[in-house]
Parts: sequence; structure tokens; C-alpha cells
Amino acid sequence: MAIVLGENQYGKAEVRVVRVDRDDAAHRITDLNVSVALSGDMADTHLTGANDKVLATDTQKNTVFAFARDGIGDIETYGLRLARHFVESQPSIHRARISVEQYPWNRQGHHSFARSGEGTRTATITFDGEQATVDGGLTDLTVLNSTGSEFWGFPRDRYTTLEETTDRILATAVSATWRFSRAEGVDWEKAYHTARASLLDAFADTHSLSLQQTLYAMGSRVLENVPDITEVRLSLPNKHHFLADLAPFGLDNPGEVFHAADRPYGLIEGTVRRDGA
Amino acid sequence: MAIVLGENQYGKAEVRVVRVDRDDAAHRITDLNVSVALSGDMADTHLTGANDKVLATDTQKNTVFAFARDGIGDIETYGLRLARHFVESQPSIHRARISVEQYPWNRQGHHSFARSGEGTRTATITFDGEQATVDGGLTDLTVLNSTGSEFWGFPRDRYTTLEETTDRILATAVSATWRFSRAEGVDWEKAYHTARASLLDAFADTHSLSLQQTLYAMGSRVLENVPDITEVRLSLPNKHHFLADLAPFGLDNPGEVFHAADRPYGLIEGTVRRDGA
Amino acid sequence: MAIVLGENQYGKAEVRVVRVDRDDAAHRITDLNVSVALSGDMADTHLTGANDKVLATDTQKNTVFAFARDGIGDIETYGLRLARHFVESQPSIHRARISVEQYPWNRQGHHSFARSGEGTRTATITFDGEQATVDGGLTDLTVLNSTGSEFWGFPRDRYTTLEETTDRILATAVSATWRFSRAEGVDWEKAYHTARASLLDAFADTHSLSLQQTLYAMGSRVLENVPDITEVRLSLPNKHHFLADLAPFGLDNPGEVFHAADRPYGLIEGTVRRDGA
Amino acid sequence: MAIVLGENQYGKAEVRVVRVDRDDAAHRITDLNVSVALSGDMADTHLTGANDKVLATDTQKNTVFAFARDGIGDIETYGLRLARHFVESQPSIHRARISVEQYPWNRQGHHSFARSGEGTRTATITFDGEQATVDGGLTDLTVLNSTGSEFWGFPRDRYTTLEETTDRILATAVSATWRFSRAEGVDWEKAYHTARASLLDAFADTHSLSLQQTLYAMGSRVLENVPDITEVRLSLPNKHHFLADLAPFGLDNPGEVFHAADRPYGLIEGTVRRDGA
Repeated sequence: MAIVLGENQYGKAEVRVVRVDRDDAAHRITDLNVSVALSGDMADTHLTGANDKVLATDTQKNTVFAFARDGIGDIETYGLRLARHFVESQPSIHRARISVEQYPWNRQGHHSFARSGEGTRTATITFDGEQATVDGGLTDLTVLNSTGSEFWGFPRDRYTTLEETTDRILATAVSATWRFSRAEGVDWEKAYHTARASLLDAFADTHSLSLQQTLYAMGSRVLENVPDITEVRLSLPNKHHFLADLAPFGLDNPGEVFHAADRPYGLIEGTVRRDGA
Repeated sequence: MAIVLGENQYGKAEVRVVRVDRDDAAHRITDLNVSVALSGDMADTHLTGANDKVLATDTQKNTVFAFARDGIGDIETYGLRLARHFVESQPSIHRARISVEQYPWNRQGHHSFARSGEGTRTATITFDGEQATVDGGLTDLTVLNSTGSEFWGFPRDRYTTLEETTDRILATAVSATWRFSRAEGVDWEKAYHTARASLLDAFADTHSLSLQQTLYAMGSRVLENVPDITEVRLSLPNKHHFLADLAPFGLDNPGEVFHAADRPYGLIEGTVRRDGA
Repeated sequence: MAIVLGENQYGKAEVRVVRVDRDDAAHRITDLNVSVALSGDMADTHLTGANDKVLATDTQKNTVFAFARDGIGDIETYGLRLARHFVESQPSIHRARISVEQYPWNRQGHHSFARSGEGTRTATITFDGEQATVDGGLTDLTVLNSTGSEFWGFPRDRYTTLEETTDRILATAVSATWRFSRAEGVDWEKAYHTARASLLDAFADTHSLSLQQTLYAMGSRVLENVPDITEVRLSLPNKHHFLADLAPFGLDNPGEVFHAADRPYGLIEGTVRRDGA
Repeated sequence: MAIVLGENQYGKAEVRVVRVDRDDAAHRITDLNVSVALSGDMADTHLTGANDKVLATDTQKNTVFAFARDGIGDIETYGLRLARHFVESQPSIHRARISVEQYPWNRQGHHSFARSGEGTRTATITFDGEQATVDGGLTDLTVLNSTGSEFWGFPRDRYTTLEETTDRILATAVSATWRFSRAEGVDWEKAYHTARASLLDAFADTHSLSLQQTLYAMGSRVLENVPDITEVRLSLPNKHHFLADLAPFGLDNPGEVFHAADRPYGLIEGTVRRDGA
């Protein structure tokens, strides 16, 4: 049976571009990690090593920096500019996917900033020459509820030892991706902050019978509050906090002292979307 | 527009199970990181928090340990046993996916071992009640060719500054996944070692005009040598080694002194498969 | 020549204890990583394996959890309680060192929190049976000045190619440790927040001719504002931001577009202390 | 009380230099991570920002690359060359410390290599203008004994719940540093390999009543086999492997199935030296 080339893509990953806007007395900084993935008419380089259709990944990196010269703005807009450029300027490139992570900073002065660490904003933009698809999102947003979480009523088989609980700590590191219904005319900045606040609010005010229930509430809240978003995908590790057993030392533990475990962890993943999306 | 639940799965991730086989004077150890992901009839827990169809992730963890009691053997076999168990014992579970990483150790004595670090063996097994799919693979296999790699003939646009080269270092950390044509009757151990050797050999003996060419050669070599494999997916970061510029110090540098860069890096991804697969 | 045992210590590292205070409607959480290191009369276990003087590291872990039962409070206070306990309850233990990392959380509701990521508070407490020494500190506080930093006037030898600059980005991840003059009667909470604010303020308002100058200003500011601190040790990686060269693309770059580099990095370390301390 | 500058040092950290030796048909590669730390007459730059005594860390980086031009050889030799250069060429530099990590590769062909991951060789060289001190060492050498390890006879206090055991898994990631008695005339290559083999052998053939006993045996073995080494410092995390409790599932577990835990871990640190050293 013959051997053939299947799906493939290539690009420059993790270009760390930082932009300073100096227009006002108070500078602004944009701190990004940008990855480019291109695909198209790439059989030659795989089969014979002919590179005349292979825009060098070094060139892609240069383009990322050059396109920051005139301002970056929202990462969705910046990603769209880059994706369109690669497809429209290179006949051999049929699809570009730009992935961006944006690190948040808090202002400490006119020219001074502290990295906030309160989650990373993400965007993935895909353009195939006709259609542009925009996904927003965030990662590394770690949240914890110290009560208001239960877990009971699950099936018990031969291997089940877990006790039911009506009060546990619920903690997770949110990774969320949301699909926009269009690539133009969206207020990306507002959409991001509304989506982020929706996730935090739904996590905080949902009395949880399972992390799945919380996941669904978080996704639904985003859809209710941001009309331009049609689908939310969530990946929620269940960062287990086990009640420390203090009985051997003659002490009770009324839900106060916990061991924060590393591995293993539950991993709850799900999509919430508008019907028909 | 109504809001609905889309694709979802859940499970216990990164269960670190180690097994010692003591049957012979020389012990054997199996060192695994096992993740379980289940999906099925899970609407209730998302919508109302009812958990009567949710096999607890803690139970999944227990099952991973219990199934190691009678021996683990090849990770493909172990994964198949686990995947079948979850689907066949729980009516609400329609699909199970078991992902396993196996860490290699070198023997130092009858009961003593040193972690080798020469790549991690992987397997992902999916079972939907009827069909079992088995993917083998490896990660973290870092390789380098000190010569025999060129890169030239690529298009030059406004943003291209890269110089052509006919002799560069080529280095990558191989992540490979291969799909087996069947889930029974395969000598998993032999298949793994043949595939691994094929990747190393093809990397070493391919005179490379592009990393894509090397990728295709590596995937093809696996398919040539392991008839049970129908498709190989490869992800190859181009770990750039830049020739240090010693001219300012009055020194030449005939391909001897390099700077190993971290980020950004090229990322070459592709699939090689049997025609019709 | 005979072989002898030199300095040694042992203990349990990285106990992840989380405490929830539920006294008020608004819960409070304390999220710690605690490490214990003990030393004393430990020759026997090294030479013969006799463990009658070796308080098990598992016991140390249990103690960390048990001592959280009655409240944790400031990490300096908690560390002092633990250090004194180990030395005073075990005749063979002559010195205890407790190291604590505290992760900050922001309140999102009465029972809901988001990890802030704005630096980790640290403390190391040492007790030798008579004297207690308390070090406070912080790590992972990443800060950046977008202007107000120069570097010129450095010596030029055969290997010097760096150009002088009167305007660069200055960025670092602060690790600071400060020594307290006493172990009792200090308002640890206030001292920490004053020291942290002093570091941030001095970083922001120092026009910098070298990162060393900024380091000295940061350490001095802490000493000026916290009388109970006698010495500040700082470790400041110079997280280089290189101006992207856009000239090949026909673009200028007036201090706007930068490449954030990973490695190598400058590393500036120094101590600032009160004279006579 | 006046504020003064205390101990300080600065330098370039983590210079990733790779050298290819092409003299023979079979190439050789040397893969290093080099850090430089300098100290001396540095008050001015801290107090006023005057940099006329501050050899730029960029210059240090250039020197690391330039000094690789004529060959690297053993990392101890390379570190000595660099340390002497900085102190002898810059009057303001009174002490240089060079730290080197060397990553091992296995040969796959004349020009092809695979990273072995079997531990990293280290060296730290200090020169103060008169005296050179050389420390060798290794890190990231992970080893495991599947039997031959006991732990019992430890004191039991109120917080002790650990059961005694006469057969457990003993696993650790070795970090070792050894001090050489002289900086000239040592066969560094042979010393390294003898020390490494001594550590592995002593770990494998010591029936262990405590990890401290194993530590002492490992350090002693190095001193017995390498006369040029006067002192060995070891840091051994006790990578706990807990026997999985299978009784709830109606299964026994005769020392076969273990859970490999991440945190917390025991941490055993100690020095073994020649008497009088």
C-alpha cells in the first residue's frame, strides 16, 4: 500500500513580543506570546525538500514584530491582521492560524507595572482565504469556593470507596475558549471582560452539586451576557482539597484544615452552546 | 435561542501507578501516568447536579490501581482492559479513553534502577462499546544532527531576512503518535521498539533539506517497518541552534560554537499514512 | 584519612496546607507550602541506620496539619510555633528551620476567591533552642519599567559589543528576603505589606543607571520604612527586553516593539543592611 | 543607623552554549548551560549608578562563547579558564564563580545524537585571584530500589501515625556536589565517571535502614574511590511510593502496586568528608 502525506502545518511558535505605547504620559504595555501555524500546498518540501512554497518560520517571526509597529490593539484584531496577511500574500498558504496569549499587568505608576497573574487572555484566529474564525478565551484563572459545594448520589461499584459529602472545597484552574459568531464588528475588549466576569460570577454564586453543574452554569452565563459568543468550551481540573484527618491527634476538623493535592486530579471538560450553533 | 450542552467528558487525570514484578530474582518495574476520560449520558449532572450516572473520578482512580494487581504488561493491553471495563460495567458510559505515559528505567542491579530519560512511551485507547482504537507513541525524545541539514530556496518577501544555509544543526524533541490497524493480535512491545528505532534511524540517516522532509522520512520509516501501523502523526519543534558570531572578537567560527535558543521555535507537524487508511 | 559525617539536616518538604476560617460570614483562606528541616544528634542513623533519634518526616507533616487546627495567623508566627515545638519536644533535635510560602488570593464573594498571582509571601524561621531568627520575604513579583532606565559607561574589553543606552525597558522578578531584629513583638502583617510596597515604590520611582542601583534603592527603602528589619537580600534577574530591529522592513522602532528574551539573563544579587547589623 | 551595602555579586546566568567538534568523522557535541557570577569593587554602581567597574553581563556572555572557540574539554577546565580570565583582566573584579551544567547525549551515528537524560554533570569553579576552588557534581539522577529498604525504630510522639516497615521502595533524585582538593593535575573526566558510578553502586548495594544511611554510604563510596575528592554534599528527596490499599476491593497487595506521590516529600541532606578536610 502506498504511503502518502496527510494533514500538516508548520509555523513559528511562542514569539514573545512586548509593545510599549508611549502616546500619553501614562505608558501602556501589551505583553504577548504569539504562535503562527500555516498550511497549504506543502507536499514538495515533505517529499523532496524543495522549499519554494515554504515561507520561513523566521520570516513569520519577523512579521509578528513588524505588524506590532503600528499598534497591536486587541489580540483578536492583531491575530486577524496576521492571519489575513499570510494567506493573502503567499499563494501556497491556504490557511493560517494565529494563537495569542496575553499576560496582564497592573499599573504601579506612569511607567511602572506589576504582572498580575490573574489569568491569561487568549485568542485563536483562523483564516482560510474566505472565512475567518475567532475564538477568545482565558487560561490560568485559579478559583476556589470554601463552601457551597456537594458531591453525593453517585453510583457505587466494587471499586467505589469515596464518601458522600455535602460540604467540600471546590477549586479549579479555569481554561475557557469561546467561539464568536462573526469576525468583524465585535467589541473584543468588552466581550473579553464580560465573559471573564461571567465565569467568575457563575463560579461564585452557583451552589454546586457537581463540578459539571458549575461548568454548565459558567458556560451558560457567558452565553447569556455576550450575544456575539455562540459556544463556550471549558476544561476544569478538580483541584482536590482533602480534609486533613486530625482524629489520631485527638483533634476534630470541622472543615478547616485541608491538604491541597497535586495529582491525580479530576478533569471535567464540556461545551455549552446556543442551540443550532 | 436556547442554550444546550455539547460534547463533554470527565475523568481522573495523571494517576501515578508503579508496579513491581517480583517473580524473578531480578525485579521489573512499570512506571505509569494514567488518565481516564469518560463520556456518555451525562446531561443530568450538568443541568441539575444529579450524579446517579456519574462514576466518581475517585472510583476511576481506584480501578486503575486495582487493575494493576494482576499485572500490567504492555500499556496498550492495560489500557484496553480499563477502557472495556468502564464502558461494559456502567450503562451510562458510552465511550472511554485511557491515556498512558510510561517512563523508562535502566537496570542497575537485581532490585535497582535508574530513570533513563530517553523518551516516554505513550498509548491512548478508545472504546465505544463496539470498536476499540489503539494509538501508540512516544514523547520527549530529543535528538540532534550536527551536520547533514540544509535550508535554502525558500521564498523571500518584505519580511524575510534569514540567510540560506547548506549546513546547520538540526535538533528536535520528537512527539509521535501512531494508529494501529487493529486492537487484538498485535505484538505491542515489538511494535513500539521497532517504531522507536525507525524514528531514530530515519532522523540520523536522512540528509535533510527541510525539517518537513525529515518528518516525512521518519513517518514513512515507521510505516515501512511496522505493518500493523496505518498512520503516524509527528510534532517536531525545531530547536534552533544559532551559530555564535565571533567575528567581533577576531575569531572565525567554522560551524563549531552555537547558541541553543529557547523561544521562539519552529513547529513542524504532519501526518504520514498508508493510502486509503 | 578517616571519613566523617559533616553538616546534615532532614525534614518534610512542601506540605500543602490550606486553612479556611469560617468565623465570619465572609470566610478567609490561608494557602501555604510548608517545609521543615531539622538537625541535631543524627550520627547514628547515618552510620548504622538506628532511627531512635529520627522524628519521622511523616510525623513532621502531621504536625504541620495539626498545628493549623487552632489557626495559622501570620506565617512568621506559625513558623515560630512549629520550630519551637520540634526543638523543645525532641531532645535529639537541636535546630529546626521552617520555610513557608503563602499564596495570595483575592476575594470574589463571601466564600469565593481567585488566586492573585501577585507574588508569594515567604518566611523562614530558625530556632536552635535559645535563639529564634525570623526572615520574611517575597518571590515571583514581576515588575517592569517602560522607561527611566539607562546603562552606559561600562568598561569595554575585547569581548564587549553591547551598545550604550539611555532608555531601555527594565524588568525583573523580585526575590527578596529580609531579616528581622527580633522574633517577638513584631506586627508581621504590617511589616510585610510595608516592605512589599517599599520594593514596588522604589522600583517605580528610581531613575535607574544600573539594576544594581535599583536594587540598592529597593533594599534601602525597606530599611527606611520598617524599623524591625535589619537587612534585605535581593536577587533580581534582568529580564532582557531587546528592541526589535525593524529596519530591514523599512520601519523605524522608537522604543515601541521589543522581544522578551528567556535565556540568558543578567542576575543581580545584593544585600543592603543597617551599619553594624 | 546608616544603611550600607553588604555582600553582592552579578553576572550572566544560563548561557546555552553548544560546541561541535568536527575533527574526526564521528563528531562530538558538548552541550552546556553556563552561569557567571562576579564580585569585587562594586559600591559605585549600587550607590551612584556609575558603571566604570561593571563589566557588562553581555560581555560575559560573549566571553563564554569566545572561549568555546578553541575547544571546551572538561567543564572544570573550561570553568577555570573563564574564572581566571575575569579576575585577571578586570582590576575591579576580585572573585569569579562559574557554574556549568552539562547535558549528556548518546551517539546514534557519526553525526547524530539522542539526549540521554541520565543526569546532568555540574561544576562550580571559584577564583579569587589567588586560590581556585573546584566543585564537581551531578543532578537529576533518579534512582529506585524495589526492595532492600526498611524504616523502623523511630520515636513515636503524639503526632506519629506512620507504621514501621521492613520492605519499602526507596527512590530519590540525586543531587551531589563534591569538592576537589586541588585545581590542577586532576583527571576531571575520570573523576566524574568514578564518582557517578560510586553513587549508583552504593545506592544499589546498600541494604538501607534509613535514607540517611544510604546517603552516608554514597558519599563514603565516592571518597573511597576518588582520592582527589575531599568532601561530598548530597541532597536526596525521598520520592515516596505508597503501597496502594487494595483491601476494599477484596485484593491483597504483596508489595506490588504503589502510588508515586509528588508532594510532600522527605528531603535528606548531608555532607560526608575526609577527617580534617
